[in-house]
Amino acid sequence: MSDATSQDDVQAARRGVDPSFIGDMEHAVDIAAREWLITELHKLHPADAADALEQLSSEDFEQAIAIMGNDLSPDILIELRDELRADAVEVLPDQAVVDAIDELTSDDATALLDQVEEDRLETILEELEPADRATLEQNLAFDDETAGRLMQREFVAAPEFWTVGHTVDHARSLGENLPDQFFQIYVVDPAFRVKGAVPLATILRTPRNVLLSDIMIEPLTKITTDMDQEEVAYLFQKYGLVSAPVVDDSGRITGMITVDDMVHVIQEENTEDLLALSGVSSADGSDTVFDAVRARAPWLAINLGTAFLASAIISIFEPAIDQIVALAILMPVVAALAGNAGSQALAVAVRAIAEREMEGAASGRAVRREVLAGIVNGIIFAIGVGAIAGLWFRDWELSAVIAIAMFGTFVWAGLSGILVPLTLKKLGADPAVASSVFVLTLTDVMAFFSFLGLATLWLL
Amino acid sequence: MSDATSQDDVQAARRGVDPSFIGDMEHAVDIAAREWLITELHKLHPADAADALEQLSSEDFEQAIAIMGNDLSPDILIELRDELRADAVEVLPDQAVVDAIDELTSDDATALLDQVEEDRLETILEELEPADRATLEQNLAFDDETAGRLMQREFVAAPEFWTVGHTVDHARSLGENLPDQFFQIYVVDPAFRVKGAVPLATILRTPRNVLLSDIMIEPLTKITTDMDQEEVAYLFQKYGLVSAPVVDDSGRITGMITVDDMVHVIQEENTEDLLALSGVSSADGSDTVFDAVRARAPWLAINLGTAFLASAIISIFEPAIDQIVALAILMPVVAALAGNAGSQALAVAVRAIAEREMEGAASGRAVRREVLAGIVNGIIFAIGVGAIAGLWFRDWELSAVIAIAMFGTFVWAGLSGILVPLTLKKLGADPAVASSVFVLTLTDVMAFFSFLGLATLWLL
Repeated sequence: MSDATSQDDVQAARRGVDPSFIGDMEHAVDIAAREWLITELHKLHPADAADALEQLSSEDFEQAIAIMGNDLSPDILIELRDELRADAVEVLPDQAVVDAIDELTSDDATALLDQVEEDRLETILEELEPADRATLEQNLAFDDETAGRLMQREFVAAPEFWTVGHTVDHARSLGENLPDQFFQIYVVDPAFRVKGAVPLATILRTPRNVLLSDIMIEPLTKITTDMDQEEVAYLFQKYGLVSAPVVDDSGRITGMITVDDMVHVIQEENTEDLLALSGVSSADGSDTVFDAVRARAPWLAINLGTAFLASAIISIFEPAIDQIVALAILMPVVAALAGNAGSQALAVAVRAIAEREMEGAASGRAVRREVLAGIVNGIIFAIGVGAIAGLWFRDWELSAVIAIAMFGTFVWAGLSGILVPLTLKKLGADPAVASSVFVLTLTDVMAFFSFLGLATLWLL
Repeated sequence: MSDATSQDDVQAARRGVDPSFIGDMEHAVDIAAREWLITELHKLHPADAADALEQLSSEDFEQAIAIMGNDLSPDILIELRDELRADAVEVLPDQAVVDAIDELTSDDATALLDQVEEDRLETILEELEPADRATLEQNLAFDDETAGRLMQREFVAAPEFWTVGHTVDHARSLGENLPDQFFQIYVVDPAFRVKGAVPLATILRTPRNVLLSDIMIEPLTKITTDMDQEEVAYLFQKYGLVSAPVVDDSGRITGMITVDDMVHVIQEENTEDLLALSGVSSADGSDTVFDAVRARAPWLAINLGTAFLASAIISIFEPAIDQIVALAILMPVVAALAGNAGSQALAVAVRAIAEREMEGAASGRAVRREVLAGIVNGIIFAIGVGAIAGLWFRDWELSAVIAIAMFGTFVWAGLSGILVPLTLKKLGADPAVASSVFVLTLTDVMAFFSFLGLATLWLL
């Protein structure tokens, strides 16, 4: 996607983005110094220029985009983070969007078009060449987060019976008409079904008279247009791919996916998991307060419910707390430690599921490990908590109660930390989302119930 | 690293690893069916063969490796997860390790050698060709997690005054002596300083008489041998790189890093963050119970301390709880909700720091956003919690107390969720590690202090 290898004047990029440059930009925006902005930003690598723009306040950012208008390079536009690119598209005149779409590869153009609002879409599509328009409309018809949506239509394919020499001559005759960036030549049959791929390094080292079919590697796996992007990213990662052909239902090549897009997907999926584990549905550096509240309030609302559930359990044991105030004082210790143990087990499980280390017998082994780890940590911390509580309140029955409750809750926490995500996965849900709420509720309930229950039975 | 593109018989890989195959393998290990294991595993893509081996129990895994011994393909060995590769190296005879090192590219050989125990290292190094040995010893001398440790010594470089035609002819004459996989030809001066790079796609499309110096792209940034792998991965991601030269202090090219290794690093760093946020220092599918306890007990021990700190605060307000047992019942609600809000802010901050969205003015904006989001969510949940508590206990003074405490704690949680990781980052520490403990302790302390404190002042 980001086409680092086709830039000419990237020398300036070496300096990266220094803070004084941001100050200069802010000043330039204030005085609407169009020429200066265009010249200075285009001296940078597009990724650095995008970085610089992203560091402006959102008002300055939108003004900067508006000032540059048609002269903002599409390469910079595409390097902006998704959220900011959407803002930029909103500010840019139709013609600038049309020009950008013309200039970008089809995957980037699709990403850009995807951010155009409904009511402008028709106007912009009408401005495009009919062939380009058809391609983009086809791309947009694929579901979000699928290979079809991510692929670029620009790729290089050759028939099986071509020799290395013929292929090289042909490529050279096409010259600038070849895609900017590609790593393999796909070998296809007359119906354009993919038979294999020849890495460019192999082309380079092989004598001219060798047939492509003799040096091609067969495709490891078929990436179809409807394959989920997470699955595609997993294949890239597992097989160390740099690019791969995308085929339609009948096996005909329709596009190509390159590794830089997959790196982006891997980051996205990792971010989703990390945020989901903490009950955040999405986040970005440019989020407004409203975005932040919207992404977090729903989980807090669920947590409100589970917290009052815990309160209800505590209230069952009101008589005990009324008589022994130490119970109220110690109660959060059991809940906090067990909650922590549950979160640990959960994080380990979510990671292992994401890296596909939980296939087959591995999940059974993981459950056994978590239970045993819960038992070991349970013994250690039951003794620790029991000892501190005993010394503090000089009450060894209380100490025994909290130690037993602690132990039971630890084992329970380990078990729910692994079983909740595994169950969610089996049900086809994302194990990172919602797991945390379940696990913490289960451990809280168990912590309060076992500690206060035991105390009621034993100490009253 | 994983050389998917140089395999011959990968057709079989398409079937992936099916569960019945794992059963067959277990049986083969039981009866030590050496030939069967070797034949069947080598029919698979090395990544799939490694996957299959990883699904065995750890005893079966070690036995399978021992049975195959010298006949285990180095390509499979290098595809194993780090932890399991270390186990495999331990089981393999010296000669098998030496053969593997001979066959692998220098980055993979270094990774393998790194897992050989001290006492075997000398024996194995002595068996290697002196030149290979010198290279590997140099690589091992670089710090862990640096570009020097990750780079491979095999790359393709050419002088600036070569033409495209001359370069292609030369590459063809080297044939199989070229590295299996490369994506660019580095252009160097007579002292081997990197002047630029020519992507293979550019070589292919350019007429034979053009000079390399006319089509090369200048390096965006210098990757030196001592650069941290996280920094290198960031550059790959930002500039969409597929490979990059690594240079020594004087700018001379010493190796090459490819994107597949960086994908591995990105995953590693993401995993570290996700686990660290939940207080786990490391985790792998093959971890034993002992590994799991060791990775988690330290954080639980710290949490033990902070939990008793919270208890100590509660105990200050013993008289209040003694008189109004509803305080004990409601106390965990304030702590749970605020803790959740703090974790949310923290996860967002850790992610933004990792993706470098927190540079310059952005961090100030983020702090403002978190405070405002804390205020908005604080108002929403203060009203919610206050209403529920009021209806439950029919006590509107209690309701006001919990609402005010909730609001204050929410703002405090948002503030600590962003300031703690930013401060750790400023101090040069990893913001994902330890942040969680600090934030949860700060919110717990604030929650109990404000709720019970206000109740003491107002309700007693």
